[in-house]
Amino acid sequence: MDVTPRGVGLVGESEVVEAIEARLGSVIGEAGLPESLAEACRYAVLGGGKRLRPILAWRAAEAVGGGGSAAVAAGAAVEFVHAFSLVHDDLPAMDDDDMRRGRPTLHKHAGEAMAVLAGDQLLTLAFAAIASSGVDGVTMGRLVGELSAGTTGMIAGQVHDTLGGHAAGLSDREKLIETHRQKTGALIRAACRMGAISAGADDGQLAAVTRFGEAIGLMFQAVDDLLDVTQSSEHVGKRTGKDAEAGKLTYPGIMGVDATREAIEGLRIEAAGAVESLGESAEPLGRLAERLAVRTA
Amino acid sequence: MDVTPRGVGLVGESEVVEAIEARLGSVIGEAGLPESLAEACRYAVLGGGKRLRPILAWRAAEAVGGGGSAAVAAGAAVEFVHAFSLVHDDLPAMDDDDMRRGRPTLHKHAGEAMAVLAGDQLLTLAFAAIASSGVDGVTMGRLVGELSAGTTGMIAGQVHDTLGGHAAGLSDREKLIETHRQKTGALIRAACRMGAISAGADDGQLAAVTRFGEAIGLMFQAVDDLLDVTQSSEHVGKRTGKDAEAGKLTYPGIMGVDATREAIEGLRIEAAGAVESLGESAEPLGRLAERLAVRTA
Repeated sequence: MDVTPRGVGLVGESEVVEAIEARLGSVIGEAGLPESLAEACRYAVLGGGKRLRPILAWRAAEAVGGGGSAAVAAGAAVEFVHAFSLVHDDLPAMDDDDMRRGRPTLHKHAGEAMAVLAGDQLLTLAFAAIASSGVDGVTMGRLVGELSAGTTGMIAGQVHDTLGGHAAGLSDREKLIETHRQKTGALIRAACRMGAISAGADDGQLAAVTRFGEAIGLMFQAVDDLLDVTQSSEHVGKRTGKDAEAGKLTYPGIMGVDATREAIEGLRIEAAGAVESLGESAEPLGRLAERLAVRTA
Repeated sequence: MDVTPRGVGLVGESEVVEAIEARLGSVIGEAGLPESLAEACRYAVLGGGKRLRPILAWRAAEAVGGGGSAAVAAGAAVEFVHAFSLVHDDLPAMDDDDMRRGRPTLHKHAGEAMAVLAGDQLLTLAFAAIASSGVDGVTMGRLVGELSAGTTGMIAGQVHDTLGGHAAGLSDREKLIETHRQKTGALIRAACRMGAISAGADDGQLAAVTRFGEAIGLMFQAVDDLLDVTQSSEHVGKRTGKDAEAGKLTYPGIMGVDATREAIEGLRIEAAGAVESLGESAEPLGRLAERLAVRTA
């Protein structure tokens, strides 16, 4: 199935999510995987999730006058990367998490070897999703470059978050921003940019979408940090309170809960302002920033 | 640095290897990685290795009249995938190997979390190497598709090798061929095809190179299996005898040492015959098959 843009705001979010999930399933189905590996991939990527990144890719495409199957492919690619990162982050050698989205993590469900391999496969499928997207060659090259840069930033953030290794002389606050900008921000930024690129954005449009993506990337992680200290595990669907346990740098840990809320509000305003110049077609994208600022799960 | 083809057989193998290693290093250097992650990536990919796959890519490009930086980029991409697969295969949850190429494996050297992350990063850099290759958009799309298909085949082979899950009703010999065709063969095939594609091969040329790649892919693993039972660990540079210990399907285990040698000879002849039609420019590629059939490490 596919969705095509029918004018501003006329494509509902559920329709976008449906198109994305269909595409995720078809990329897995067309890869010729052994059934056990395909099942593990589906478990990881089709077992729920907010589909935030593909929705961002879609809304960013829409904001610059595009959409359609190219935006769905771009979004699916980013979602595969997101899914792979969760599978590997949950491994015993990493965060050692047993639960994810209210279900056992993949290594608990299918064993650790399969979780390593399925994570690798999901990352590979991200690029396969672009290769089979049908976009023109130049756009494809740019999408592959954006996806590899976004993934690289995310992995760099994981290294900082899990193993440290920041440049010398940074304050805790600077380390926090650097980690968050990479760990969560790089892929959210890539989602926004890839959506815009899939739609043939010009330089000015791409710059606006990039500023939006950078602001909400940081905001998203600040909200995540806040939920980790203010919400129960049952509500969020994964173990909370673990950042403090693990001694990780977080917004509330560094600046307290109130200042974290203020930072979130500042980033929300920054994001909304970034895409105002794109006009009416960017309104659904701007509204996403509002919603992400006040999410509770 | 770069190499440019100067006529049949005039580019020596050491020159190709030098260009490949320079490119591997520059892709890592340009990715903006935290130093610890960059060091882990260099340890994994620049710490030796025969560079078989990039040499195949180069010789395949040369066989159809190409070469140059596009072939180097294609080869580097495949080598990054190969390096990532070794890092993850060596993990405790997988083959649990302590030594690789006569040195501690990456998780022994840098810890298990870093080995997971560096493997992910190396896989990402494979695609980054193509994105930054400067080839035209159509070629880039084909290279990304080939690389993701080759990587997918390799991971599928790992699943079969490590976890089983073959289709019902296959004999041990059929399972062996399926596993080897994927585990080692898919990436060797991809290396040959990507080299040829980078050089603008026509359909007939690509088909010849593909038949060559499929034959030597299977042959390479048959030789590996043979070395595992006939050579010492010191000589090969990694632990030998482990396939039998692990109860894995191998050529010698299924058909005995003598029949394995005969199978290798048959595949060598098949490979050499496949590229004869490409003429003089394919002679260095053909000679690689001879050499790989009789390698002892």
